Amino acid sequence: MSTAATAPPRWLTPAQQEAWRAYLRGSRLLEAALDRDLQSHGVQLSEYEIISMLSEAPGRRLRMSGLADLVVQSRSRLTHTAARLEKRGWVRRESCLEDRRGVELVLTERGQQAVEDMAQVHIESVRRNIVDTMTPEQFATLGAAMAAMRDAILAGGLPSCSEV
Amino acid sequence: MSTAATAPPRWLTPAQQEAWRAYLRGSRLLEAALDRDLQSHGVQLSEYEIISMLSEAPGRRLRMSGLADLVVQSRSRLTHTAARLEKRGWVRRESCLEDRRGVELVLTERGQQAVEDMAQVHIESVRRNIVDTMTPEQFATLGAAMAAMRDAILAGGLPSCSEV
Repeated sequence: MSTAATAPPRWLTPAQQEAWRAYLRGSRLLEAALDRDLQSHGVQLSEYEIISMLSEAPGRRLRMSGLADLVVQSRSRLTHTAARLEKRGWVRRESCLEDRRGVELVLTERGQQAVEDMAQVHIESVRRNIVDTMTPEQFATLGAAMAAMRDAILAGGLPSCSEV
Repeated sequence: MSTAATAPPRWLTPAQQEAWRAYLRGSRLLEAALDRDLQSHGVQLSEYEIISMLSEAPGRRLRMSGLADLVVQSRSRLTHTAARLEKRGWVRRESCLEDRRGVELVLTERGQQAVEDMAQVHIESVRRNIVDTMTPEQFATLGAAMAAMRDAILAGGLPSCSEV
C-alpha cells in the first residue's frame, strides 16, 4: 500500500497551525472590510486597485498582461473589471505604444480624479483595519515577512492566474 | 472649497506604504500559489477550505450561514461552490437539526476521504509558499499580528460579504 520513496507528512505544529489560521481568516476579513469601505463610496476594491496602479505608472498606462500580474488577477477577471471602468469613463483601451499587437489600459482625467477622491477614504480604511490594529513593530515585521514571501513566490515563477 | 471639520489626510509613511504594498501583493500571490498547487490535484482552494472546515466541525456539519462567515465568502459564492461539491458526492445539503428553516452542509464519507487525501498536498504547499519563506520568528509575529487584526475587525462587526 505504501510507496517506498514517500516522505512522511510534515504537519504544522499547533503554534504554526494557529498562526496560519489567523493569517487565513484575517486576510479574508481585511479584504472584505476594505471592499466594504470603498463600496460605500461606489467603487470596488478590485476597481480601485487598478486605477491606483495606473495612476502611478509612467504615462498612466500599463499593458493588460503586466497589470494582471501586478494585481494578481486572472486576465478574464481583469477584462471584466476594465470594461466596467471604461463604461464609467475612468479608463480607455488602446493599442500598445511599442507593440501594436498588445493592449494597454490608459487612465483618463476622470479616472485620475476618481483615484484622488478615493485615496483618502482607502488609506483611512487601511489604517483602521490593519495598521492601527497592531503595534508598529508588528506591522513592520509583517511587512518584511510578506516581502520575503512575495519574493520567494515570484522567484519560483508567477503563479498562473488564468483560472483563479 | 474646504469643509471646516475635515481632518487632514493621514497618509502612510514611506516605510508603512512599502509594508502595505508587500502585504497586498504577497497575500494575492500566496492565494494564487495555494490554489495552483491544489488545482493540480483537481480541487480549488475555495473548495478545499469548505470541506476542511466541515471535517473539523462537530458531526462534520455546519450551517451555510456560519460556514460563509468562517471562510468569509458571500452566500451566493458559497452556494455555487457547495453545488459543485455536492455533484462530486463530497457534501450534501440537509435541513438544520435544530432549526428546520435553516440549511446545513454535511460532509460525506467520500468528502472526508478527499480532505484526508488533499491535506498533505495543501500543508506542503503552505510550508513551501509561506512558512519556509520567512524566519520562524517572522512567522510567529505575523501570526500574532494577523490575530490582532482579525479580532479588531470582528469586534467592529463582521464585514458583509453579500457582494464580495
